Amino acid sequence: MFEQPHSLEGFARALADLPETDAEAVAAARARDAVLTKPPGALGRLEDLAAWYAGWRGVATPRVERPQVIVFAGNHGVTAKGVSAFPPEVTVQMVANFEAGGAAINQLALDANAYLEVVPLALNRPTADFTEGPAMSPPEAAEALAAGWQSVHERADLLVVGEMGIGNTTAAAALATALIGGDGWAGRGTGLDDAGLSRKAEIVAEAASRHAGLSPLDTLAALGGREIAAMAGAIARARHLRIPVVLDGFICCAAALVLHEVNPAALDHCVAGHRSAEAAHARLLEHLGKAPLLDLGLRLGEGSGAALAIHVVRAACACHSGMATFAEAGVSEG
Amino acid sequence: MFEQPHSLEGFARALADLPETDAEAVAAARARDAVLTKPPGALGRLEDLAAWYAGWRGVATPRVERPQVIVFAGNHGVTAKGVSAFPPEVTVQMVANFEAGGAAINQLALDANAYLEVVPLALNRPTADFTEGPAMSPPEAAEALAAGWQSVHERADLLVVGEMGIGNTTAAAALATALIGGDGWAGRGTGLDDAGLSRKAEIVAEAASRHAGLSPLDTLAALGGREIAAMAGAIARARHLRIPVVLDGFICCAAALVLHEVNPAALDHCVAGHRSAEAAHARLLEHLGKAPLLDLGLRLGEGSGAALAIHVVRAACACHSGMATFAEAGVSEG
Repeated sequence: MFEQPHSLEGFARALADLPETDAEAVAAARARDAVLTKPPGALGRLEDLAAWYAGWRGVATPRVERPQVIVFAGNHGVTAKGVSAFPPEVTVQMVANFEAGGAAINQLALDANAYLEVVPLALNRPTADFTEGPAMSPPEAAEALAAGWQSVHERADLLVVGEMGIGNTTAAAALATALIGGDGWAGRGTGLDDAGLSRKAEIVAEAASRHAGLSPLDTLAALGGREIAAMAGAIARARHLRIPVVLDGFICCAAALVLHEVNPAALDHCVAGHRSAEAAHARLLEHLGKAPLLDLGLRLGEGSGAALAIHVVRAACACHSGMATFAEAGVSEG
Repeated sequence: MFEQPHSLEGFARALADLPETDAEAVAAARARDAVLTKPPGALGRLEDLAAWYAGWRGVATPRVERPQVIVFAGNHGVTAKGVSAFPPEVTVQMVANFEAGGAAINQLALDANAYLEVVPLALNRPTADFTEGPAMSPPEAAEALAAGWQSVHERADLLVVGEMGIGNTTAAAALATALIGGDGWAGRGTGLDDAGLSRKAEIVAEAASRHAGLSPLDTLAALGGREIAAMAGAIARARHLRIPVVLDGFICCAAALVLHEVNPAALDHCVAGHRSAEAAHARLLEHLGKAPLLDLGLRLGEGSGAALAIHVVRAACACHSGMATFAEAGVSEG
């Protein structure tokens, strides 16, 4: 088992040395699928999901029993530039709302029978405004990555990472711009008007060019918020624990992008839970090579779309592991 | 409350006199949605679903607590023409599999906490081969509609109707051809090859032209199987009970189409659970004006896609009815 890294170099090493899927479990799951009482292929993506899940768990007939949802919260110095429709104090107010059970993710986690954890990250100490300097020093970024790494339960069997952080679509757009290039990564976030959107796009372009040419993890430090780094740390930790991950929206995928740029195989244990209404999310998913399970126009963050997609993964495993075979049921195979 | 009809004329009357959504409950749900702790619109289609569901149930803060899944099974005389990749005895074998808990719908209903009922309809007495005459007489069709009507639990709060019937994509395609027109409604069903598909397309075109010019309910008698008529009866009964319905794939939607052609408002209490991989399903959904909730490449029938979509409707209501308002949570509204 990989020990928790303490520096950006340590995280880079953790991402260079990743466990692979269990090809035997995948083959056994595929063989079982072929004899279940249904026409071949009739369960569509549920069949692929079950085989993928079987591979990461290393069992031919897996079940999703202990999903974990972690919501990381962070504050962003760049909010001083007026990049959000909501004031920065909403981050801490929403953390209180999570803790009191009042947010969408509370309902969705409960409904999906998932264990929900909220991890606020130094909310009274926002990251620096990245239009003026790096958001975090490398040790600060490593600390946030470690907070994510530590938050994953070893016994979880499916992980959703979500976030809350006023200003964090700006940080995510800056990360995508710096790591992928091009423009158009800035979106309306929680509801910017046209003037706000064009100011945000300028800030994102400037920040990406100011912090260009860094390694992916140094880019994360320069632009990402603590919650984004923590999501990346949690996704990496889940890989080492062979816990499949359901990715959420644009910000979660920006965190995943950092890992993908370090090692393109780093997200093989991840599935895209949904396509968000935040315009650049579809483009980011395409870059990551992930087809979303759901497309319901959500754009809330908090892990909401991914938490909803837990049902799909669980149902896929339930069909795969619970159905009878043609022989067991005495059904003719056509 | 509308009494159970006993003839096709009676069913036509039941479809002319339909309860409407409760506009006050919809307005109250919309007003509540606007003050929940999230940016306006951030839950996308979940917000519309909750308001729609609230209207049919007549409550501003509804919950999905007692979903019912009914699988109707029927046999089709047209299987004598070799329209399916599976032999007709599979219908009765699969009913036994449903009763033993071995099919996909058993797993999906269990996973969605839904009450599953299986209703075999005169399996030892297939409908007549509709290439040679009407599949059912009007009284036989009325009996099958009534079987569906009776199967709906008065206390259910969400309904899925599914089906099993070797040959029933041929009947569904013939219904769509006769009621909507055009060609291309025949698809591969459980897995026809090219030769099988072109034979099926011919049979569908011939049958639709042989039984052209009938009323929608008489068309149902001439082409539909008993399970298709029963699905139509159950959907109609749910409307009179103000129970929202999640539509399944191509065959379920062909049953719904019959109601829609009798009264275009007859499906206002229905949402499309998914888009099936059966090619003509997307086109049928478009004709019905329904956007699917899921698109996962399923093509199994049994109510499988709709049962999976129960999770989405339930989650929509859970968010809507369980979340805190800005005032309750002390969160700034931006």
